Amino acid sequence: MQGVFLDQKLSLKTDLPVPEVEKRGALIRPTLVGICKTDLELIKGYMGFRGVLGHEFVGVVEKSDDPRWVGKRVVGEINCSPRDSVTSDPRHQTGRTVLGILGRDGVMAERFTLPLENILTVPDHLSDEKAVFTEPLAAAYQIQEQIRTLPGRALVLGDGKLGALCALALTDLGCKVRWVGKHSGKLAPLAALVETVLLENLDHNLFPLVVEATGSAHGLEVALSRVIPTGTVVLKTTVAEAHKIDLAPIVINEITVLGSRCGRFQPALDALSEGRIDPTFLVEKTYPLSQAMAAFEHAARPGAAKVLLKL
Amino acid sequence: MQGVFLDQKLSLKTDLPVPEVEKRGALIRPTLVGICKTDLELIKGYMGFRGVLGHEFVGVVEKSDDPRWVGKRVVGEINCSPRDSVTSDPRHQTGRTVLGILGRDGVMAERFTLPLENILTVPDHLSDEKAVFTEPLAAAYQIQEQIRTLPGRALVLGDGKLGALCALALTDLGCKVRWVGKHSGKLAPLAALVETVLLENLDHNLFPLVVEATGSAHGLEVALSRVIPTGTVVLKTTVAEAHKIDLAPIVINEITVLGSRCGRFQPALDALSEGRIDPTFLVEKTYPLSQAMAAFEHAARPGAAKVLLKL
Repeated sequence: MQGVFLDQKLSLKTDLPVPEVEKRGALIRPTLVGICKTDLELIKGYMGFRGVLGHEFVGVVEKSDDPRWVGKRVVGEINCSPRDSVTSDPRHQTGRTVLGILGRDGVMAERFTLPLENILTVPDHLSDEKAVFTEPLAAAYQIQEQIRTLPGRALVLGDGKLGALCALALTDLGCKVRWVGKHSGKLAPLAALVETVLLENLDHNLFPLVVEATGSAHGLEVALSRVIPTGTVVLKTTVAEAHKIDLAPIVINEITVLGSRCGRFQPALDALSEGRIDPTFLVEKTYPLSQAMAAFEHAARPGAAKVLLKL
Repeated sequence: MQGVFLDQKLSLKTDLPVPEVEKRGALIRPTLVGICKTDLELIKGYMGFRGVLGHEFVGVVEKSDDPRWVGKRVVGEINCSPRDSVTSDPRHQTGRTVLGILGRDGVMAERFTLPLENILTVPDHLSDEKAVFTEPLAAAYQIQEQIRTLPGRALVLGDGKLGALCALALTDLGCKVRWVGKHSGKLAPLAALVETVLLENLDHNLFPLVVEATGSAHGLEVALSRVIPTGTVVLKTTVAEAHKIDLAPIVINEITVLGSRCGRFQPALDALSEGRIDPTFLVEKTYPLSQAMAAFEHAARPGAAKVLLKL
């Protein structure tokens, strides 16, 4: 079968074997998949991953030992518990595999597998174009899983896709959001929903919650300069290189810096399904799988929004 | 009057004016004061402070417009609310002054002043030698003010004074503490109370709570490598210089990094008063105020424990 394969360099292979479906697993035929910034980092060597790339998908279950799933349109959580595991949160288990990221082939191929416990049915009325955002949107809703009582106002730094989704999710959760970025064109689509501000025009008002989603090593410094004493900075940015930073403000102002990665799918799927969030304005272009190399080249352009692959 | 004065360089002055006691304030005659690492940082230029140094003290109220306080032996919280302030936590108020640190003369002189709302009576049976530790011990108990439900086990990094007090406070609060440092001689006094481990022998076991009190810029890296996913690192170290650090583990493992500075005095004073904690093993030497310069030279020696000034 055809698929996007990473083995130090990226290539589109045509001779990949169709994977064997696992016990209590599903063989899934993806219909639409997203290229994520993490995929681009993996290509640069992050995690040392080798295999089929991709973890954002919507698809159809083609085979399973549980016949109730066959034919269902699904999305799926990317962290897979190790076999015989009994602890509750696969997102942090030692020995876990992560779809297209760690020890498990990803979704950018004609077929892939996931454990049944990872998949969720997509409501019929929800389009593939929206459902494919479940995974990145879940990462935005994770903020609420971590901070049960959200404050009334929040500052979101970074006008990339994750920043946009965080601004949308926090707004949906009742926060009054100020969204900051470097590109007026990227901020514009949400101007009716949130307060948008160019970084160069950002004043020195302080916020009880600051979400750092700039993708830049400097973002944390800006975040620490705009959070109230005893406030919280949610750190979403993972940058490969170490960065020089003055940590004293964290101690002096007793800031909580909260690392935040991916989240449960259900809150995000509900928000999409109920029409509370429509992230399709983020889609820049959709390529067929056969043009995956061009799609990756496009996704790697500075400032590119979401690039999708249609299968 | 005599006092230790910082004006770019440190000197022992003999012609300082006795301060005027404020309305709702106390003129205090200190009897024993501690030299803190922060004092040494202030001498290096931290905060740009100019004035009488010192913030760890026990002393006697000599004058006040509230006669009930006169003659009382007291300790005192170091953060002073700005006049007419109505918010609740002076530790983080804009416009606050901080005893011997920010905009207010400190305790290393024959007399100094504090607002009455800052002072607490020392029980008669509690010695000056113990009571003088109230301020640094309050910083250790602050961990519980921030993390209401402490886990059963904690790792404390740093065998300096603050590390020792954190190890003691967490033990008092019911945590099983592993205390890590570079000097077996410094770890030894607490060997009967906590598990002590030399850094070079530290295994890779993970802890739900790690307190970083090494005073070194590298401490956070060690802390992040020893905390469980979704665990908490309490950051106590303030280092003047910026430090290069890889922040990705905070995001990937969804760590909470909690800046922690000084705390309320009462829990610390209670622990000292009830004999739950005896930090006097940390006292290395006590100098008279007239030998303050020698005392500061001593306190600045690498690895020096607590140096006190007796007035």
